[in-house]
Amino acid sequence: MNILKRAGLVVGMPIVIILTLSLFALLVRATYVEVRGPVVAEEQLAAKLDYLENLEPGTGEEFNIVLIFFDDLGWGDLSSYGNPLIETPHIDSLADDGMRMTNFYSGSPVCTPSRAALLTGRFPPRTKTDRHVFFNDYHAVGWGRRILGYANELPKEEITLPEVLQRIGYRSHMVGKWHLGSSEGYRPTDFGFDSWYGVLYSNDMFPLDLYDNDEVIIRDQRDGGMLSAERDEWQPLHGQGIDQTKLTQMYTDNAVAFLEKQGERPFFLYVPHSFPHVPHYASGENAGSSKGGTYGDVVEDLDRSTGTILAALERLDLSHNTLVIVTSDNGGDYNGSAGQLRGRKQEILEGGQRVPMLVRWPGRVPAGLVTDSMAMNTDLLPTILDLLDIPAPEDRIIDGKSIAGTLFDGSSSHEELYYFPTLETMPGAVRDKDFKLTWATGDPGRDREHLSHISGTEAHEVSNLYPAAFERLKGKLIDMRNEIAANPRGWLTE
Amino acid sequence: MNILKRAGLVVGMPIVIILTLSLFALLVRATYVEVRGPVVAEEQLAAKLDYLENLEPGTGEEFNIVLIFFDDLGWGDLSSYGNPLIETPHIDSLADDGMRMTNFYSGSPVCTPSRAALLTGRFPPRTKTDRHVFFNDYHAVGWGRRILGYANELPKEEITLPEVLQRIGYRSHMVGKWHLGSSEGYRPTDFGFDSWYGVLYSNDMFPLDLYDNDEVIIRDQRDGGMLSAERDEWQPLHGQGIDQTKLTQMYTDNAVAFLEKQGERPFFLYVPHSFPHVPHYASGENAGSSKGGTYGDVVEDLDRSTGTILAALERLDLSHNTLVIVTSDNGGDYNGSAGQLRGRKQEILEGGQRVPMLVRWPGRVPAGLVTDSMAMNTDLLPTILDLLDIPAPEDRIIDGKSIAGTLFDGSSSHEELYYFPTLETMPGAVRDKDFKLTWATGDPGRDREHLSHISGTEAHEVSNLYPAAFERLKGKLIDMRNEIAANPRGWLTE
Repeated sequence: MNILKRAGLVVGMPIVIILTLSLFALLVRATYVEVRGPVVAEEQLAAKLDYLENLEPGTGEEFNIVLIFFDDLGWGDLSSYGNPLIETPHIDSLADDGMRMTNFYSGSPVCTPSRAALLTGRFPPRTKTDRHVFFNDYHAVGWGRRILGYANELPKEEITLPEVLQRIGYRSHMVGKWHLGSSEGYRPTDFGFDSWYGVLYSNDMFPLDLYDNDEVIIRDQRDGGMLSAERDEWQPLHGQGIDQTKLTQMYTDNAVAFLEKQGERPFFLYVPHSFPHVPHYASGENAGSSKGGTYGDVVEDLDRSTGTILAALERLDLSHNTLVIVTSDNGGDYNGSAGQLRGRKQEILEGGQRVPMLVRWPGRVPAGLVTDSMAMNTDLLPTILDLLDIPAPEDRIIDGKSIAGTLFDGSSSHEELYYFPTLETMPGAVRDKDFKLTWATGDPGRDREHLSHISGTEAHEVSNLYPAAFERLKGKLIDMRNEIAANPRGWLTE
Repeated sequence: MNILKRAGLVVGMPIVIILTLSLFALLVRATYVEVRGPVVAEEQLAAKLDYLENLEPGTGEEFNIVLIFFDDLGWGDLSSYGNPLIETPHIDSLADDGMRMTNFYSGSPVCTPSRAALLTGRFPPRTKTDRHVFFNDYHAVGWGRRILGYANELPKEEITLPEVLQRIGYRSHMVGKWHLGSSEGYRPTDFGFDSWYGVLYSNDMFPLDLYDNDEVIIRDQRDGGMLSAERDEWQPLHGQGIDQTKLTQMYTDNAVAFLEKQGERPFFLYVPHSFPHVPHYASGENAGSSKGGTYGDVVEDLDRSTGTILAALERLDLSHNTLVIVTSDNGGDYNGSAGQLRGRKQEILEGGQRVPMLVRWPGRVPAGLVTDSMAMNTDLLPTILDLLDIPAPEDRIIDGKSIAGTLFDGSSSHEELYYFPTLETMPGAVRDKDFKLTWATGDPGRDREHLSHISGTEAHEVSNLYPAAFERLKGKLIDMRNEIAANPRGWLTE
């Protein structure tokens, strides 16, 4: 033991010295280096404004859109996706009345790039969300991101779905978590939402202020500091703020209030819930009712919320002309279930990115259809544009594709899908209908070419049996990596 | 980019300086500190010799034992455990002719402590195998283990199953991978094997010499160095040595040759295969035949090997009086399948430690029985002692229990099982029939109390629903942690 102690000192002291030196170096650097705010690509911003200005309502029939987007809901967390403990009858009803997709993917295994992908139709590096998630500038990580030159908000020149819809006359409203930046000029109302209600960051991040249209209505009074990184129920901060046991209900009430205010114009209601991201707080009256424990309570709260929103649509006679979409921003975290899939949130294994996807649209999407056609949340923007017959922007690559065909009859729109590891810029895996080729997992010990059957276990490497599939997918992945390297932002004009 | 470069220098230079200082400190330390060889607990060694000396053949009926022990075979890697691609008819035949266990565990999620548990019946800290795996002394990690005071071989005072069997008249032979030390006096023949054939370390470790009774018969000629850590097919060393495509067959031939030499006395044949640990080399003639790719080929080679050993037993009229056991040293690695379980090798999640376990013993173990009774490979030694009616040592704790009852009718012998994270000394989880309580996972971000249904998904934390189960298991875990802290080696006499 004495030897261990002495060895610890011998090894430990230099580490303390180096950490001190590093901190000092960073401070010196911060003093001399401009800690830059958001960088704007002026030319593309002008092109964006030009594109939006010239938009006119399309010739497609207009319809309402309700997009319910869970945070960290896993592939195996819903009854309709096989969960044995958690009961989600309202969400599952969408599978009966609409379509359930079994090969649907989030645009990233973590929050920020997935949300950027959802709203812009573009891969993480296109939107500068390729380096994990955004933090408050006030937090050491947010500050560090600026020093290192990483984005800490969605770039102003990105074109979002709500901006397009707003421009052609939709009313748009967001209820829930933004996580695409907090600087002035980079909030939901700056990206196409008429109004919003919710939080700017995850429910484990400090400060967790509740906003109503940029006005803080519940201020986080907790005693956090610039190093108070993610906090959850196991490392609570002390003090007052949002009562998270009421958060899902507050979002739900706000969403219903928005629906009740509807008038002549169609609407886009985006509901990016804060849950089931950690920390988990069940609503008071239902706590303890799920067989899935507190996590199950939280998911069942979300199910009840979905039921309330669906009931409001029905009561207000809006169901028939409303496209309802329910999905998740990435795979489940530690408490969530990936079902039979490998891996979880943060990983490009299937459990990190394959997520539930339910779509209801009476008379348009066939009721009860289960499809294994591939799709990704990058497809939302191009699909809506397609359905409304609105031209896509021409100055930039939209990575997603319209999956209108998939919605109408389950037919496939994609030959391949690409996976982007959370800390990388380049895609690390690609799949087609039958196979997945993983190359760069983000785990240096596993950066190997690994071809697996997508329908079987992801475990076994089968490239010896399918050399043509291996070569084809490897070629596709290399092509995409080269494309991203040459043109990370995907600009089509100079 | 320039900013990134400069930031890299500012952060990187001090790191280089500190690494240099640390290395220097270690060198200074190595000069002044005795780099100790194996430490022997003399009193317990004397007690061990006394115990062995006084052993006499028990009153139980004698029988032969064939123990086939795979390296990194996962819970989901056999047809009989649900693998959809790999075909293992010979191993599966043991399930038809004997028992298949669905709640059997390795003693650790990694090689060395699991092998120590198997041969001694004791938890990792008892055998000083609580800090991951052993390395050759010549390797930097092995050298580092000594400097830090960790064991790098099974302590001489440990009592092993082959020593007991050898003492009461069994012939004992090992074919395969030892991984319990390589210093003189710490090899298989020093721990109760009459003879052995195989390798001292994993097939990704350098040097990989093939031994026949302590004589090197194939010397590793590759160009490795003291920092040449684990090497597999993705980082090959150049040069000659064992042709790993023939390794399983060489082990099999040697095992069959041992069986053919049998005479009057009963025998213990221990076959700890090198595969399916990485790197994967399929046998030449069967390469490419498995639907599970090269990994499948390797597992199917092991299945054919098992078939050959079973056929030899049959041909030599030994089957009726031979207990055949097939299991694995830990859960599957990246290429292996954990089936529906979470996690893999290195983790105390179920996929890291729950492994296949098949037992055939004609006339004793009921044919076709599938049992969900819990057991762990620490149970092997006490079970064999029980079956042979031989007293257990009294100067030390044997953590395993006899599962003779489980073998005869599937009845349970355990109220709880404990899980030891690979880099910890204390147990980090405990399970009973219905629940698992995980506390210290070895992943600092996940060191939380997490109660889950053992039969459902390990994901959801359900302590709010089962407070009594939670308190009971927490109490058990705390008790065991206290016991290990007070008496890590489990000595019962001073």
